[in-house]
Amino acid sequence: MYYAEPIARLIEELTKLPGIGPKTAQRLAFHLLHMDKEVVRRLASTIVEAREKVRYCSICCNLTDRDPCAICSDESRDQSTICVVQEPRDVVAMERTREYKGLYHVLQGALNPMEGIGIEDIRVKELIARLGSGTVQEVILCTNPNTEGETTAMYIARYVKPMGIKVTRIARGLPMGGDLEYADEVTLAKALEGRREI
Amino acid sequence: MYYAEPIARLIEELTKLPGIGPKTAQRLAFHLLHMDKEVVRRLASTIVEAREKVRYCSICCNLTDRDPCAICSDESRDQSTICVVQEPRDVVAMERTREYKGLYHVLQGALNPMEGIGIEDIRVKELIARLGSGTVQEVILCTNPNTEGETTAMYIARYVKPMGIKVTRIARGLPMGGDLEYADEVTLAKALEGRREI
Repeated sequence: MYYAEPIARLIEELTKLPGIGPKTAQRLAFHLLHMDKEVVRRLASTIVEAREKVRYCSICCNLTDRDPCAICSDESRDQSTICVVQEPRDVVAMERTREYKGLYHVLQGALNPMEGIGIEDIRVKELIARLGSGTVQEVILCTNPNTEGETTAMYIARYVKPMGIKVTRIARGLPMGGDLEYADEVTLAKALEGRREI
Repeated sequence: MYYAEPIARLIEELTKLPGIGPKTAQRLAFHLLHMDKEVVRRLASTIVEAREKVRYCSICCNLTDRDPCAICSDESRDQSTICVVQEPRDVVAMERTREYKGLYHVLQGALNPMEGIGIEDIRVKELIARLGSGTVQEVILCTNPNTEGETTAMYIARYVKPMGIKVTRIARGLPMGGDLEYADEVTLAKALEGRREI
């Protein structure tokens, strides 16, 4: 390294972030060094503040700055339905549809035996605990449509169904605006399998 | 936005950085939220510290944490040669070659009439001032081999040559390890023009 020490250290710290290689880190560093001092201080304090304030909701396990989170404490939402997703960003994706009015449960991951992620590593126990009260009538499994997500959905379904609760899986099929010709065969097979009478 | 407020603000601040779109900002934000608190605090203070400590060297205009910078105050370097580059990262690129032992001058940009960057916006005046003492015998123009860099080099050459100082331009030709077949015609023409007897 031939940079002044604070620059070298800044580049080094930035390189540790995901998806930030040495070139991007260098570009970011020079940008930061040319930014207004006040703006840089605000960025730094935003980062620290977010990390300090944000924790997991004790009910749905989503990231939140207050416990219970805004969704769990919103009594106008349908308390009888829980949508199970893998990550906090999936909650945001669902909320964007403006179609879903129930509650969520964020697993913080999916089963992945290849990477040693088992049932104890995701928030399934917390989900089961929520179902005991009898308020919940439907669990919608919205884990990702890939091997890990499907495995996780199957596992949870096997656990929850004997409790007498309706368990559904989000539909897998052709993406809207897509083209049949360009759909991969697995998606196409799933879309065919999930066909409905009109 | 459906994120908790500190998360939303973090994503928003990260999106302002160059090359960071909403998706990358979201990924970075979640990574930061899962990092150790101590590591996050260190990252934030590294950013602020770099911005607070780093300024321009009063001699060569490179970024530095002390003035004059490490290179300008290194008396073992050849004081009679100045290598003129556009950006601080170009100094690092030159230093990596371990071939150059002289001094630098960082213009902090290049002439670009299209974007309104004129002679007053880059550090040419500071370069001219350094040449007055009579110590410097050669100015090597290492601006980029593109329109802006060439224009800047030509401009400086026209200014410095009448001062009786040798002015050279870094060679433009085929990149090492490259293949003649894949070289673009401008590079090839430059390489031909710059041919030397062996």
